[in-house]
Amino acid sequence: MEIKLIIIGFGNVGQGLAQILEDKNNFYKDNFNCDFSLVAVCDSLKGSLYDPQGLNISELLQAVKAGRSLESIDAPTKGWDALTTINQSNADIVIELAYTDLKTGEPALSHMKASFRSGKHFVTTNKGPVALHYKTLKSLSEHHGLMAGIEGTVMSGTPSLSLAKESLMAANIQSIEGILNGTTNYMLMRMEAGLDYDASLLEAQEKGYAEADPTGDVDGFDAAAKVVILANVLMGADLTLQDIALTGMNTLSIDDINVAKVKNECWKVLGHVNREPDGSFNAWVKPVKIKASHPLANVSGAMNAITYSTELMGDITLIGAGAGRIETGYAVIEDLIYIAKKCY
Amino acid sequence: MEIKLIIIGFGNVGQGLAQILEDKNNFYKDNFNCDFSLVAVCDSLKGSLYDPQGLNISELLQAVKAGRSLESIDAPTKGWDALTTINQSNADIVIELAYTDLKTGEPALSHMKASFRSGKHFVTTNKGPVALHYKTLKSLSEHHGLMAGIEGTVMSGTPSLSLAKESLMAANIQSIEGILNGTTNYMLMRMEAGLDYDASLLEAQEKGYAEADPTGDVDGFDAAAKVVILANVLMGADLTLQDIALTGMNTLSIDDINVAKVKNECWKVLGHVNREPDGSFNAWVKPVKIKASHPLANVSGAMNAITYSTELMGDITLIGAGAGRIETGYAVIEDLIYIAKKCY
Repeated sequence: MEIKLIIIGFGNVGQGLAQILEDKNNFYKDNFNCDFSLVAVCDSLKGSLYDPQGLNISELLQAVKAGRSLESIDAPTKGWDALTTINQSNADIVIELAYTDLKTGEPALSHMKASFRSGKHFVTTNKGPVALHYKTLKSLSEHHGLMAGIEGTVMSGTPSLSLAKESLMAANIQSIEGILNGTTNYMLMRMEAGLDYDASLLEAQEKGYAEADPTGDVDGFDAAAKVVILANVLMGADLTLQDIALTGMNTLSIDDINVAKVKNECWKVLGHVNREPDGSFNAWVKPVKIKASHPLANVSGAMNAITYSTELMGDITLIGAGAGRIETGYAVIEDLIYIAKKCY
Repeated sequence: MEIKLIIIGFGNVGQGLAQILEDKNNFYKDNFNCDFSLVAVCDSLKGSLYDPQGLNISELLQAVKAGRSLESIDAPTKGWDALTTINQSNADIVIELAYTDLKTGEPALSHMKASFRSGKHFVTTNKGPVALHYKTLKSLSEHHGLMAGIEGTVMSGTPSLSLAKESLMAANIQSIEGILNGTTNYMLMRMEAGLDYDASLLEAQEKGYAEADPTGDVDGFDAAAKVVILANVLMGADLTLQDIALTGMNTLSIDDINVAKVKNECWKVLGHVNREPDGSFNAWVKPVKIKASHPLANVSGAMNAITYSTELMGDITLIGAGAGRIETGYAVIEDLIYIAKKCY
């Protein structure tokens, strides 16, 4: 069946998603009975288009590649802002990929509210609205009988949340620990190879892993937001970012790393949450020294990994991409197909 | 809601499952709205009981522990064989855990047919019926509008099949490779530590990992059956056990293992299937030398792991238990909850 989509935010991830929709539409039609049609794109810098009959995705990608405004393309409606697009369009699902303020969760929060109130399912890969406002997201989606897709907020399209939600809840998850930030994991790999902190950061920035302002990665805020999401979504916690004890990777010296190497150990920045005997939660992000034989020791470069420790199944570890244009775009595809299966 | 179960085969896995049902029934009632009631148990050696109102699980476990026949317990009906139990009882779901002949898939195959024909969903952790008769399983379940649960046939309760089915199909799986047999993986770990082949086999037998006749493990038949299941269920192949090229681990010498160790490499028995450019499938089980930094290198002892190589997400690896009484019992729980969500 036809499922009409809006993409809010047409940066790297939005373009990666559009590329998948373009390349794989027949595959998804044939195998999942999902005929995805992109009816609107809305980007605060690149412009905004709406065509209730569906836009031509390859034209959109070409325009962006050529540095032209989206509005250079012919369409029945141009220039709508995100809220107007969400409220006025005929879409079934809103996909929120715009830049989000990690302090307020805006503008994603307003987009989420408008989606549900106008009868549309809501999918996002933005940590902000989910780490800060999961209760609102959950209660609004339940109240309106609509779905919220958030797979891409942790480990990009590596299905860390759905693995746990679909298959591990009945095993009783007691703690979650993992390599949740690819930038710091890449930097640690390069420091083990002999680079110092500044050189490894510069290289991570050159490769596009680290932002110009690397604070979110190296101080642990990015990983902390993911710990909050994992704890609240999978363990029934009600944590905020302030509940996560943070130790940045800049507390590590090149000596620490070399000494570990000699002892057949290595440092990883891990995010962690566990349920304490009194029912409270203990959560942190910090550099941890692990043995070279530890299952997470070989998770190197920009890869991410999560270990779920469960009562019935012991430890179950998932390793996969933690970022990337196509990889994060794929997280949206997973959510879209899940919503299609449940609701159409 | 109440869901009535039959267990066919009350060995290790059946008892592990019964233990979980006994310990966690309130948890599953409260969190999944599943009130599992065991109405029949049928074991060719331990006896057979049927009570349409539900049996007392702790009595069953006590009888087995004390070496008494199940039929020493009071119940309205005793002594039914498996087919009579499946055909005559009021159960919703048949759980097949009896010993299966890997050449014919019997008696599980007959139990599966009887389940579907009498209107009952069918769950099994037996590789036999799935590796040999997946087409029959699929067509009968579709024909009767009933579900087939097979999570426990690969990696016990580690959700290897559901991870792929629920989240990776849209990423286009191109190859699957993994450590699919815990016995040989344990033996290789012990041979790296200095034991010879015979001593490591003896130790695996003492620990209950290897059977008295270890052929199924060391010659690769067990892993081959899992490769067939993965290929047919997840990649649309139609392989038989004869299509898997087998090289047993007994082709490895202690010298091979020591030489690898010096070079920072290690041997793992891997199962593999990939789609060739012409659409055919290439599948094998053999010892493979991998680098110590390979994600599968740290999967040691009786643990299992699978790497799914996909077009859109690259490699995604899942590591977890590959066997065990409770772990394989939990695979059934996953299938039961999935069926309950879909059908009740």
